[in-house]
Amino acid sequence: MKISSSKENLVYGTQIAQRCISSRAPLPILNGILLTARDHQLTFQATDLDLAIECATGVEVLEEGSVVVPARHFLEIVRRLPDQTIHLESDPQTKLLILTYGSAQFSINTLNPDEFPVFPNINGNFTQEIKQVLLKEIIRQVAFAASNDPIRPLFTGVMLEIAPHHLLFVATDTHRLAKRKIEQENPEIEQPVQTIIPARALNELYRLLKDEDLPIKISITDTHITFYTEDFIFSTRPIQGYYPDYKKVLPENYQCKILINTTELLPAIERASLLISTKEGNSIVHLTIKENYLTVQSNSVDLGSVHEEIPATREGQEIAIAFNARYLIDALKNMEAEQMAIEFTGNLGPGIIRPVSEQDYLYLLLPIRT
Amino acid sequence: MKISSSKENLVYGTQIAQRCISSRAPLPILNGILLTARDHQLTFQATDLDLAIECATGVEVLEEGSVVVPARHFLEIVRRLPDQTIHLESDPQTKLLILTYGSAQFSINTLNPDEFPVFPNINGNFTQEIKQVLLKEIIRQVAFAASNDPIRPLFTGVMLEIAPHHLLFVATDTHRLAKRKIEQENPEIEQPVQTIIPARALNELYRLLKDEDLPIKISITDTHITFYTEDFIFSTRPIQGYYPDYKKVLPENYQCKILINTTELLPAIERASLLISTKEGNSIVHLTIKENYLTVQSNSVDLGSVHEEIPATREGQEIAIAFNARYLIDALKNMEAEQMAIEFTGNLGPGIIRPVSEQDYLYLLLPIRT
Repeated sequence: MKISSSKENLVYGTQIAQRCISSRAPLPILNGILLTARDHQLTFQATDLDLAIECATGVEVLEEGSVVVPARHFLEIVRRLPDQTIHLESDPQTKLLILTYGSAQFSINTLNPDEFPVFPNINGNFTQEIKQVLLKEIIRQVAFAASNDPIRPLFTGVMLEIAPHHLLFVATDTHRLAKRKIEQENPEIEQPVQTIIPARALNELYRLLKDEDLPIKISITDTHITFYTEDFIFSTRPIQGYYPDYKKVLPENYQCKILINTTELLPAIERASLLISTKEGNSIVHLTIKENYLTVQSNSVDLGSVHEEIPATREGQEIAIAFNARYLIDALKNMEAEQMAIEFTGNLGPGIIRPVSEQDYLYLLLPIRT
Repeated sequence: MKISSSKENLVYGTQIAQRCISSRAPLPILNGILLTARDHQLTFQATDLDLAIECATGVEVLEEGSVVVPARHFLEIVRRLPDQTIHLESDPQTKLLILTYGSAQFSINTLNPDEFPVFPNINGNFTQEIKQVLLKEIIRQVAFAASNDPIRPLFTGVMLEIAPHHLLFVATDTHRLAKRKIEQENPEIEQPVQTIIPARALNELYRLLKDEDLPIKISITDTHITFYTEDFIFSTRPIQGYYPDYKKVLPENYQCKILINTTELLPAIERASLLISTKEGNSIVHLTIKENYLTVQSNSVDLGSVHEEIPATREGQEIAIAFNARYLIDALKNMEAEQMAIEFTGNLGPGIIRPVSEQDYLYLLLPIRT
């Protein structure tokens, strides 16, 4: 391999590819980025065997070929290069990649490209397209509700359902559930299809997406879920298994419904969350809906107590209920809506939170018995 | 105690005072901030027994008194309060401090003010005044060269010498030494006086100082070094002992002297520093001065090697020498000068770095035998 590239292009590709490098890679080769020079392009590939990422940048190719560089070390170097043309040449004898710039020369020990894992063949059966900015919103609204607990892998994923007339994203850790629906005609689909995307993969993808109306394609096979943009290809293995029927837990009626301002409710819950229950080890917030007020209460033997009243429009019965404060805050923060509708099904039944302005999103959380 | 205050003033005082709170306080009371309401002011005091800090802010005092609040918890709360008038009232019976705002009420368990350590009486024998922005520059240029090793406490401090015609700051960890002199007439002083300020205290002070020409007064006694600004009083115990005679290590002659651009030298050393020597466990950079070039070389069995040439104006002999890369980077970064003069006394003797534009600063570092 022999190429000339701007510093900028080397940094760009290395930064994207290294997002797939795990700090606990089981094999040394997985700490590497496979660089391939061909057809006026340098391609960067990295994988941790679960996630795989590929991107490319224009360079001057003097000799085609490929080489595997240690990802973090290579990134540290290219970031510190001077802002000028960098010449890269690999020497198969010494296994060195030589970077030259001006009168300087940097030699990097490389890894064996033959050991680099075969990159997934990622042509899906069918492809959905949505906007990057919308996918970011969905990931923000849904992925946080997935579990971190590897003991039950199903719940560490976000269920994606593609149906003839919609896309649906659902995540739950069994204590709470977030669901977002997108109305979209999918003429290729006759029967709804489901897959489970690791939430971790979505959170990595989130950092690569742009806050713009640029398209991203989602392609699904039994073994890979792949996201294509103009800038990169990102692939992950789906979580195997059947996602539980989340519809069963969604209540059909409510005893009490309130409308409340997020800008008043969120800071009050955040203040209440500062009081850690000695019993539970996390913060429990007690909500009482009475007349046209929601009262937020919380207390801790060590620290103190709080009592706040927030105006709320009520429909139905008065109610008293307790929630994990963290679960409430997660939802209120990620919804980014001015006004919330909260439905209560009883003091031991689930609560449902929806942004008033957006009926396609729903967050359900179970109360705490106190 | 009974006061009314803006949220802003509570946050301001708490943020400054909590800088003295250690995460490993040996006594629970040291996790507290002593609030004292008197004469239209709320005073915030905190100490970890080594450092002490005091600041005050204007409030409406309805009833004088004092209370000790848990620092981190109180800061978390006041930061999240709504932007309105906050009423604070302490109840000596329940030992609660009650914050009320709008229809809300926050009760905080407090600590016993009688247990709060007596605050140092901080009227010094004599007082120096310099500008905050200048003191920041001095701390940045000198404090990093002090040692972190508590085994030799003397070297964890910055020596301050006050002489009739100058102030002098020196720090060394015995591998390198940084020295900054300020020409200043000190008519009160007949004989030079020395004290040793803990570098840790200076680094905390650094964060409180403003990048402005505002004055800061330094007052020294045998037991306390105290810094006064309009906003706060900051006090630390000096390190006891006699600072070694640093002048002995300053060479009088050199074999070789170069002038070199920092913007070329620093990134080259930074790139070289990415190569960790397996023998030393840190990065060793080899410098060769030959003709009108400085050559930077570094290598690592695992990672690779680097070779760069940088133009330099030379006076005296050619020389080859090796340094700890970290020590070079620390100096070049903190000097913030465009051009450096480096003097070499031999390949086993100390090197001296000075900004060409500023003769009042000097950095000495010892070479590594390779």
